Amino acid sequence: MTPASVVLLAATSLDSGDTAWLLASAALVLLMAPGLALFYGGMVRSKSVLNMMMMTFGALAAITLLWVLVGYSLAFGDDLGAGLLGDPRQYAGLGQLLGESSNGGSTVPLILFAVFQGLFCVITGALVSGAIADRARFGAWMVFVSVWTLVVYAPVAHWVFDFSSEGHTGGWLANQVGLVDFAGGTAVEICSGASGLALAMVLGHRVGFGKDPMRPHNLTLVMLGAGLLWFGWFGFNAGSALGANQAAAVVFTNTLLAGAAGSLGWMVLERFRDGHATSLGAASGMVAGLVAITPSCGSLSPLGSIVMGAVAGAVCALAVGLKYRFGYDDSLDVVGVHLVGGLVGTFGIGLLATGAAPTGVDGLLYGGGVDQLGRQLLGGGAVLAYAFVMSGIIGIVVDKLMGFRIDEEHEITGIDLVVHAETAYDLHATAGARSSGGGVTGVLNINAPREEHR
Amino acid sequence: MTPASVVLLAATSLDSGDTAWLLASAALVLLMAPGLALFYGGMVRSKSVLNMMMMTFGALAAITLLWVLVGYSLAFGDDLGAGLLGDPRQYAGLGQLLGESSNGGSTVPLILFAVFQGLFCVITGALVSGAIADRARFGAWMVFVSVWTLVVYAPVAHWVFDFSSEGHTGGWLANQVGLVDFAGGTAVEICSGASGLALAMVLGHRVGFGKDPMRPHNLTLVMLGAGLLWFGWFGFNAGSALGANQAAAVVFTNTLLAGAAGSLGWMVLERFRDGHATSLGAASGMVAGLVAITPSCGSLSPLGSIVMGAVAGAVCALAVGLKYRFGYDDSLDVVGVHLVGGLVGTFGIGLLATGAAPTGVDGLLYGGGVDQLGRQLLGGGAVLAYAFVMSGIIGIVVDKLMGFRIDEEHEITGIDLVVHAETAYDLHATAGARSSGGGVTGVLNINAPREEHR
Amino acid sequence: MTPASVVLLAATSLDSGDTAWLLASAALVLLMAPGLALFYGGMVRSKSVLNMMMMTFGALAAITLLWVLVGYSLAFGDDLGAGLLGDPRQYAGLGQLLGESSNGGSTVPLILFAVFQGLFCVITGALVSGAIADRARFGAWMVFVSVWTLVVYAPVAHWVFDFSSEGHTGGWLANQVGLVDFAGGTAVEICSGASGLALAMVLGHRVGFGKDPMRPHNLTLVMLGAGLLWFGWFGFNAGSALGANQAAAVVFTNTLLAGAAGSLGWMVLERFRDGHATSLGAASGMVAGLVAITPSCGSLSPLGSIVMGAVAGAVCALAVGLKYRFGYDDSLDVVGVHLVGGLVGTFGIGLLATGAAPTGVDGLLYGGGVDQLGRQLLGGGAVLAYAFVMSGIIGIVVDKLMGFRIDEEHEITGIDLVVHAETAYDLHATAGARSSGGGVTGVLNINAPREEHR
Repeated sequence: MTPASVVLLAATSLDSGDTAWLLASAALVLLMAPGLALFYGGMVRSKSVLNMMMMTFGALAAITLLWVLVGYSLAFGDDLGAGLLGDPRQYAGLGQLLGESSNGGSTVPLILFAVFQGLFCVITGALVSGAIADRARFGAWMVFVSVWTLVVYAPVAHWVFDFSSEGHTGGWLANQVGLVDFAGGTAVEICSGASGLALAMVLGHRVGFGKDPMRPHNLTLVMLGAGLLWFGWFGFNAGSALGANQAAAVVFTNTLLAGAAGSLGWMVLERFRDGHATSLGAASGMVAGLVAITPSCGSLSPLGSIVMGAVAGAVCALAVGLKYRFGYDDSLDVVGVHLVGGLVGTFGIGLLATGAAPTGVDGLLYGGGVDQLGRQLLGGGAVLAYAFVMSGIIGIVVDKLMGFRIDEEHEITGIDLVVHAETAYDLHATAGARSSGGGVTGVLNINAPREEHR
Repeated sequence: MTPASVVLLAATSLDSGDTAWLLASAALVLLMAPGLALFYGGMVRSKSVLNMMMMTFGALAAITLLWVLVGYSLAFGDDLGAGLLGDPRQYAGLGQLLGESSNGGSTVPLILFAVFQGLFCVITGALVSGAIADRARFGAWMVFVSVWTLVVYAPVAHWVFDFSSEGHTGGWLANQVGLVDFAGGTAVEICSGASGLALAMVLGHRVGFGKDPMRPHNLTLVMLGAGLLWFGWFGFNAGSALGANQAAAVVFTNTLLAGAAGSLGWMVLERFRDGHATSLGAASGMVAGLVAITPSCGSLSPLGSIVMGAVAGAVCALAVGLKYRFGYDDSLDVVGVHLVGGLVGTFGIGLLATGAAPTGVDGLLYGGGVDQLGRQLLGGGAVLAYAFVMSGIIGIVVDKLMGFRIDEEHEITGIDLVVHAETAYDLHATAGARSSGGGVTGVLNINAPREEHR
Repeated sequence: MTPASVVLLAATSLDSGDTAWLLASAALVLLMAPGLALFYGGMVRSKSVLNMMMMTFGALAAITLLWVLVGYSLAFGDDLGAGLLGDPRQYAGLGQLLGESSNGGSTVPLILFAVFQGLFCVITGALVSGAIADRARFGAWMVFVSVWTLVVYAPVAHWVFDFSSEGHTGGWLANQVGLVDFAGGTAVEICSGASGLALAMVLGHRVGFGKDPMRPHNLTLVMLGAGLLWFGWFGFNAGSALGANQAAAVVFTNTLLAGAAGSLGWMVLERFRDGHATSLGAASGMVAGLVAITPSCGSLSPLGSIVMGAVAGAVCALAVGLKYRFGYDDSLDVVGVHLVGGLVGTFGIGLLATGAAPTGVDGLLYGGGVDQLGRQLLGGGAVLAYAFVMSGIIGIVVDKLMGFRIDEEHEITGIDLVVHAETAYDLHATAGARSSGGGVTGVLNINAPREEHR
């Protein structure tokens, strides 16, 4: 351990209330993983729902371990110079953090902060899988997401989230550029979207893309997943305040409003464009609003958050059609929702930020000039470019070394059965027509089920 | 902002532990929305589950925005006189609450309190939708619930929840009458039930009501929804203590016990009446117990909570049959569970309250005389009457202006397809009989799925 | 109340942050019940999912009430002598705890601690039901689990969890033996596994065990349940720190890592043994890792937790096959996962514990000698033997008195229909082939559902 970190560890004392909220927040962010698995799983066909969910669960398992082993150090260790990467040895294994310690001036245990940040990486990695539904070899995905954690996410997190403090030097975007990104519009949303775009291009179309219907097989799962995501997002955003304080309360408020406005924005656009407001649209718009508020939740007023959410909902509702125009099979709209929504939120700070909000920055519309907008454009652009290029390279290498895609025949059969030797549902016994024991229909008719409350 | 509110804002300092619990509680109450959507969605037929869920998600989106814009001020602004309504301009947009502020003597951020209260309105509004399953135009529902938020819920919340403090005058039931309603037996439960009854009468029966079987299409969703509701209810009730303290702990305990006793009460009644304890009954009884404990959770002993829950479970199990006798199609038993359970809980305080509990009031059975019972009857009756009449008027006006009900033919086809252009499930590919690519059954037989753990 | 408890109640003052975390943790543990119900429910066939879920919901209701009435006193009342059982009258009904009180030196309300511990009993009891899927009379189950609460769980909790403090004498394993069991490897995991084994032997095989395929009917429910369990487990383990502090943060970290490593361990073993990593394996391995970390979460380093989780995942993946070899129908692998995983975790402390972790004990591999390993073997063995014998006796008595098992014919028909008069799913209306109103297929074709985002 370097002397710098010794200084770092000799920090202020813990606050039990702040720690309570960060414990709860970390649990909430963990729950976003099954939430996302359901959200994505419900959108694919029933022959590939398990694989879709497994990409998230696998990412959760692999990233968690890698993060503790070395990822956290790469992201939050003392900068190696140039603001690009932290020292990978500094916190390797996190064993040094068993005793009481916190980071620069914060009031929460440093080991908890480390884990909280690791769960951000989990969600970001899992989001990427939405771009390659139905067609990726599971082993190749696990290799990809592991390498991606260390090569793409950890450096970007260092740039964006690692603030310098006494005796500690952090990343370039947070400290030199002055990017405002409260909870990950760049590191999480733009990064996942750009990585997903690259991977969708590496793997190519699903069989039947743009021709066959590929209806979501279970929209109740999509709605449930969206609900769990929103619930978890309060931990993601308001937990990023690293305390139970006024800032967390404002962030919570803005997160609620943007999700609501995003859902309405998408529904209204759909209603006028297509004649129907769909449940898929309501859920997607909610996510779009939450994506856009992720970087900006600490910088806006409640009204600004409503505007931000509504704009993101409507813009993303339009953006999800781009994949058909440009011909990339971003299957579950990682690009249309997370990349586009992340850009809306990151750039929107430059316009809508108010100095009265916790981050204390004024955007263009609040008399702050174009400076902050420029910082946001630089930060967003840098993360977009880096994640897209590096994810593409990793994807291509994985594809060359071990093959990233399953056989076309297997894709048609269904990836669940071929890759995981399972199918999601076996509901035949419920219908009452037969049970595994054979012809008992008569019994069923005698004991007819109650139909509803009497 | 009036001078009164300036005084209000110069309040005591925030406590991080209290704030941590209110942050978590607000997130829990948000989760009740998807919980309710699943609880209701599972109870309807599969052709209308998405519409059922959308009524909750739509209410969540619309009410959240309206609450911030004006609803919170109507409910918690300085009283306009007579204790009936708050000043709508006072907190409009909540922008004034970005800086640190709390309400009279509390230790949590005022903006967080505002949002927490807004989520109560969301749940109340969403509950109403259970009375009009399968048959309401989505646009008409959105208009109804928006007007209802401002005309019905906000005033009632002012009456019940807005306590006067130095420099602030609140509502009549909380302050003049002395109604005890810890977390919303009147404002949430009776209000939703009475509103639902009015709306069920405005819209009329579903096609086939009382004749066709209308079995819940997915009881696993009902059980899941009930579980999420219970989980969230701890935020609802124990969060209403506005702090992490002894009162919150007692309320938590009582909430747990009443849910458990309600579930048992309903199951036992069913077992003896029908010969079977059903999962729908277990879930409904749990909710009934939770409804009854909502107003009384701060006033009872643990044993009192068990009695309250068990009585509510049994009484509501009987009450859900009333709709067939009186001929209103309260489809998912908003009246039988929320109105009746809310009355049981609100009136029961007058009997079972013990001065040893946080609210410090003695009921009739604890030597407190009939005074408190009288207050409870007045409060419950006033909210019931107001919500029923006003919701009925709003419903009728919406029906006249834009039509509240879908066509009979569309109702038979299924509201999901007609109104939202979706159906919830597409499970055919899972059965293994065929996939979207056609005849691959042979492949399936070769790679037969593993059946269970080896 | 004895003088001893008077001393107990005159404790240190409450801390709002610690209380906030314990409130949240208790809610999280409650959520484990529906999580477990879904996890188990998805694994059985569709004709018995409701009964499977009802065994958990029923246990939740019955145990909660019994715990408050007498169970908590048996477990945490002053020891009656010999360290075997607490005084059943001491806290009967919990009414004495309405006023502010805490246990020996802790900073949280004692009534909240009591409820938190009660929810541990709920989960343990519900876990047992996994051993007797598809074939137990519901009434007999309710009687069994009620008696088991008072005869098996409460004494074991007294032994393991009731620490002596000034004026209070607790149980023998915690105080005389020096067993380390942070959150219930013995009292929860070994106890549930051993009880399940006994009950599986009492009830005998399901019809078709070892011959007919008994595929999980809905693996999305299994994945969702596993996700909710993991989420809730943070309350279970980190809540057991009884405060929002460094210990809770370390426990949280270890809980995350062991779940991740367990999932990977099981998947890797499956991949090499069977050629496929399954979703059932990923979910089961996650649970296995969490089981093993439950006793050890306060004693390991992050790296130790990874080792513990991975070993548990792999060992349990092997252990679930034992039921076929030895011929007991532990239907959902309570023995293979909870008993075996609990033993791995409990004994593993003797090897892997590091003095740098919160419990401050060194295991054999960290230079601590064999002493702690001996304590762990004694504690684990005692709980295993007691729970197995007593649960077997209770099961046999219940079987003799009222019959524990349903008729074979009814088992083939499906327990949901026969016992609960319900079936879980009625999805026919969704397919679009027909609706309850009859021949409207033409309408469906005209208004074809939207297939996905445009």
